[in-house]
Amino acid sequence: MKKAPLATLLAALLIAALPAFAAKHPAAKKPAVPTKSSADIIKDSPDGDWRELDPDNTILMEFAQGQVLIELAPRFAPKHAANIREMAHTGFYDGLAVVRVQDNFVAQWGDPDGDDPAKARSLGKAEAHLPAEFSIPLKGLPLKKLPDVDGWAPVTGFVDGFPVAANPKTGQAWLAHCYGMVGAGRGNEADSSTGGELYAVIGQAPRGLDLNITVVGRVLSGIELLSSLPRGGPNMGFYDQAEQRTAIKRVRLLADMPEAERPHLQVLRTDSKTWPQLLDARRNRTGWFVYNPKHIDVCSATVPTRPGK
Amino acid sequence: MKKAPLATLLAALLIAALPAFAAKHPAAKKPAVPTKSSADIIKDSPDGDWRELDPDNTILMEFAQGQVLIELAPRFAPKHAANIREMAHTGFYDGLAVVRVQDNFVAQWGDPDGDDPAKARSLGKAEAHLPAEFSIPLKGLPLKKLPDVDGWAPVTGFVDGFPVAANPKTGQAWLAHCYGMVGAGRGNEADSSTGGELYAVIGQAPRGLDLNITVVGRVLSGIELLSSLPRGGPNMGFYDQAEQRTAIKRVRLLADMPEAERPHLQVLRTDSKTWPQLLDARRNRTGWFVYNPKHIDVCSATVPTRPGK
Repeated sequence: MKKAPLATLLAALLIAALPAFAAKHPAAKKPAVPTKSSADIIKDSPDGDWRELDPDNTILMEFAQGQVLIELAPRFAPKHAANIREMAHTGFYDGLAVVRVQDNFVAQWGDPDGDDPAKARSLGKAEAHLPAEFSIPLKGLPLKKLPDVDGWAPVTGFVDGFPVAANPKTGQAWLAHCYGMVGAGRGNEADSSTGGELYAVIGQAPRGLDLNITVVGRVLSGIELLSSLPRGGPNMGFYDQAEQRTAIKRVRLLADMPEAERPHLQVLRTDSKTWPQLLDARRNRTGWFVYNPKHIDVCSATVPTRPGK
Repeated sequence: MKKAPLATLLAALLIAALPAFAAKHPAAKKPAVPTKSSADIIKDSPDGDWRELDPDNTILMEFAQGQVLIELAPRFAPKHAANIREMAHTGFYDGLAVVRVQDNFVAQWGDPDGDDPAKARSLGKAEAHLPAEFSIPLKGLPLKKLPDVDGWAPVTGFVDGFPVAANPKTGQAWLAHCYGMVGAGRGNEADSSTGGELYAVIGQAPRGLDLNITVVGRVLSGIELLSSLPRGGPNMGFYDQAEQRTAIKRVRLLADMPEAERPHLQVLRTDSKTWPQLLDARRNRTGWFVYNPKHIDVCSATVPTRPGK
């Protein structure tokens, strides 16, 4: 079994962010509600509150610098997920590159020659035209709602580990553009994305993109590889020179990988009892904090992962 | 006069973020309100809507990799601003380092030996003990309020180019922890910051820190240098090894620099007519956007800068 150090880091981030600047004096002095720390909540969580990765919906991007693990969201973008699955299966992404890194916005990867029909890589059996998958019906969605006010949508919450926003008036629900979310780049036409060009959010949640582009999943581990890449130029962060790009060695669907090579990571279930406890711990800050915000937003809480067994 | 390429980039970012993914087909097809783009609003803005840098409240951090320009906020943190000014004046920061980079959170710099009284660098004439400067009275503050709902505070807006949150019930106003804001690291005691250890926000706005720590200013240019540094380890992003740190060559107050060496940058006045126009353009998305969010939050709009004359 392969150990996933990035995953450990991600889990640690959620814990570590709490006593944010108390490095010099880590002992918390003021007990308050909730008395249990995020670290302890995670430590004490029953194994049943965690789920394994779904090999059919998880892709591994390999770079010389490390790995990025992405969970697809077929419930929200079934056709894009199917396309990405097919493209990973046929090696479409292998040898492509991160072509754009715009500070406080996105890192984007795909075919640098995608705009040139003569040079563009073939999509193979993947669909060249997909419908926009910007939202799905709210009705029947197992949405764990947050009580906290959000400026961008009437309702927010979590489904299957993904941050979700919704509007009961229109009956729509959609994946929210939080840090680490992955979307499918498109041109001016709403239905012009294929999944061949993807981006990950690496800055303040660009919620203005919600309902404007198809969100296909989220980074489970390795986002720090993408977020720390050198920024591109003033043309929306696209690199001016080919040599500035970061090459993608290959992208594989976990289901296509030998069992022994798959990363083993578990994801906290957002329909578990542990998740609302974690949200409460994050909503009510204690210890180092002198002011308790009693608030979180859907993009300020990341669903934790832990090394699998 | 020295040209400031980073500043140009920052200004470009605000413009470029609008047609976010339309690189392949940059022509916008659907005219809508507002018809004027952010780029055009900035281009058409009168010179009087821009202000020069205040040499007494702007510091330049120099790295081998580039420069980071920070504007202090003496209205909100007068004693911290005075301390930082004094420390920059005496070269306190010269040769120190970025000691911590935690993904989706902060980059932090200061004295790596600050915890060791035997090795810690002397603060010189700067104050070793400052009061917490977490908020100031809302009364009398020239706050340009946003009409948009914010989950973290009853009121948000801008003062002197800084994102501000406020609570009319408590009469408090404070700087909001948006991307690029700079704060003074502290230990467990609220009044334990000196300004000798500073951090910049490099991820989703950690608004839970608001009212919990003294915010001293914001990065005007060069944030991408800090945000793209390699991330530190699981201990809150602190680097495990000294050689992982990024050395600070020197930090100078602009007032202490020869005129010819000072960066020349102009900042859009948030009490100008241009600023609410830009906010409106960002609030009402057109062209590439098929859904108009009709919303912004105080951390999704960055006050632009442009090269000075």
